[in-house]
Amino acid sequence: MSVGDVGERSLIDLFFTLIEGFPRAVLPFGDDAVGVPLGNDALIINTDMLVGRTDVPPGMSYWQVGRKAVVMNVSDVVAKGAKPMWAVFSLGFPRHTTMDDAGELVKGLNAGCREYGLYYLGGDTNECADLVVSGTAFGLVGRTSVISRSGARPGDIVAVTGPFGFTAMGFKILLENMSADSQSKNLALRAVYEPQAKMREGIVLSERNLASSCIDSSDGLAWSLHEISKMSGIGFIIDSIPAPKEVQTFAENHNLDPLELALYGGEEFELVVTIPSVKWSRAVDSVKVVGGTLYKIGTVTEDKELLLRLPNRAEKKIEPRGFEHFRKQSEKDFGEHGTDLH
Amino acid sequence: MSVGDVGERSLIDLFFTLIEGFPRAVLPFGDDAVGVPLGNDALIINTDMLVGRTDVPPGMSYWQVGRKAVVMNVSDVVAKGAKPMWAVFSLGFPRHTTMDDAGELVKGLNAGCREYGLYYLGGDTNECADLVVSGTAFGLVGRTSVISRSGARPGDIVAVTGPFGFTAMGFKILLENMSADSQSKNLALRAVYEPQAKMREGIVLSERNLASSCIDSSDGLAWSLHEISKMSGIGFIIDSIPAPKEVQTFAENHNLDPLELALYGGEEFELVVTIPSVKWSRAVDSVKVVGGTLYKIGTVTEDKELLLRLPNRAEKKIEPRGFEHFRKQSEKDFGEHGTDLH
Repeated sequence: MSVGDVGERSLIDLFFTLIEGFPRAVLPFGDDAVGVPLGNDALIINTDMLVGRTDVPPGMSYWQVGRKAVVMNVSDVVAKGAKPMWAVFSLGFPRHTTMDDAGELVKGLNAGCREYGLYYLGGDTNECADLVVSGTAFGLVGRTSVISRSGARPGDIVAVTGPFGFTAMGFKILLENMSADSQSKNLALRAVYEPQAKMREGIVLSERNLASSCIDSSDGLAWSLHEISKMSGIGFIIDSIPAPKEVQTFAENHNLDPLELALYGGEEFELVVTIPSVKWSRAVDSVKVVGGTLYKIGTVTEDKELLLRLPNRAEKKIEPRGFEHFRKQSEKDFGEHGTDLH
Repeated sequence: MSVGDVGERSLIDLFFTLIEGFPRAVLPFGDDAVGVPLGNDALIINTDMLVGRTDVPPGMSYWQVGRKAVVMNVSDVVAKGAKPMWAVFSLGFPRHTTMDDAGELVKGLNAGCREYGLYYLGGDTNECADLVVSGTAFGLVGRTSVISRSGARPGDIVAVTGPFGFTAMGFKILLENMSADSQSKNLALRAVYEPQAKMREGIVLSERNLASSCIDSSDGLAWSLHEISKMSGIGFIIDSIPAPKEVQTFAENHNLDPLELALYGGEEFELVVTIPSVKWSRAVDSVKVVGGTLYKIGTVTEDKELLLRLPNRAEKKIEPRGFEHFRKQSEKDFGEHGTDLH
């Protein structure tokens, strides 16, 4: 059986059985990032590899590829409540890559780091058949303020830091040639090419101990909810999904379900958080103070099911679907486009 | 101009001009690893990417590939005097990789980490055209005990932690089908397949503040000497090169220069250190106590040349050659063999 047959997640499940865990880890295996104690702090570490053929949509510039590699890594660090401090990057370039393109990639890495306050410390450079950007980001947080995926409790409110659906819409435009008016198209492509990590939101929630659990939504909103459910041993009733009006109009025009775009898109970097209900108004205010918004989407339940209960719709279960490497999925398999950078 | 035209080192030189340095870095750009202050300690971080086609010689098992990825990263951390603590790995697998092979690789990563006392904290898994193992190892050392490449001073003794030449001999056997008696062949292949990082040596020299500079020799002994020369602004007179008798016999039998094998091989993980002469005997004793050996190979000079002055040989310069990605070199370009793992 090959890794292509079983998919990324089964592979990761296998690997966990083969690795001798660090006894003093501050986060369990399978969380967004890993963490080790350093005095009263925790050092939160995330490594994420970006590969040209699967992670680079057509039309993305090398600068944007570099910046996205930073966002991917920063997003997981801030989802644990840590302040991103430093990053290193190992790069793999196909031989034909021009010096200009390689330079643009490194400029994008540096710009992304500075945007989020990190320093790009250095790294390694290699020849590779695919373009590979393997980043490791380091952040610091007080040991008692680390936010895992496993702290959600029944009665907590579940919320997100922004609306969903722009990236799925962007992929439909880029990969399936679907049309949209130019303003909506710009918004969707910007979400794909220049995603934002929700750093200030993650840090303020951790500093004030307001979140019981948190995950970034890079594998899609539905998948993120399932991960919190699995690791916290709880369920959700979701009664609201914030989707931009441009996504709703796009879905209507193309006879698509806007919920499908919002729930199963992936490559978004919003935070999905649970907040004890007594802390909810403080959480809303705290996120507002740093310039963000918390959108309540439902509540945590004891029952481990994930139910979607929207006005004027039949209740249904949220499926554990999302983007997964190795398993081909129409929405995210960039195929040969992936290497066609410009 | 493509990255293949200019080679890895010109690329790295370009990148340095594009990256905004961390003002409080404890090591300069271009050292073996990077480092940041954490209280009285320094966190030393190294990232190294292993790529199947260039870093995996024919006949190496997946388990050995995993273990080697650990050794590559550990070697740079200990060359700075730090105790390796943790590592993360991002993996790229071609789709056809079997689950068994992927599992063996991960077992090798875990085994390598435990061999050197690190914990394998976790990582990321992706699809990639090449096999890619991108590791980041990090270690801790007292801030005043970090050993850079730039502290060598005229009059210091330059020494190495072991003899050189087995890996170059191993590559000749594997890639050019050269013959050797079975015991010598075993030693050479073991050096290639299961290299050793000189951890205890690096740590004891740092703990006792005995080394003025240090580098690991993964790019070859000659290259390592040139790097210390460049970063410390000094030169060397090298009057002894320890090469095992098996390497000398192999060279004789094949009409090769054993010095060539010892100086320009690469993929060895010995430490090359400079020691102030007043500390030399303490350094020798300290390394002996931890089970190692320091071999004096010469002295540091004010003049920035690297001279090889051996008994019964004409004096000559040591060339700045070594293994470099992108630029093809007969000895280390595994070509398509690289992916032929078993």
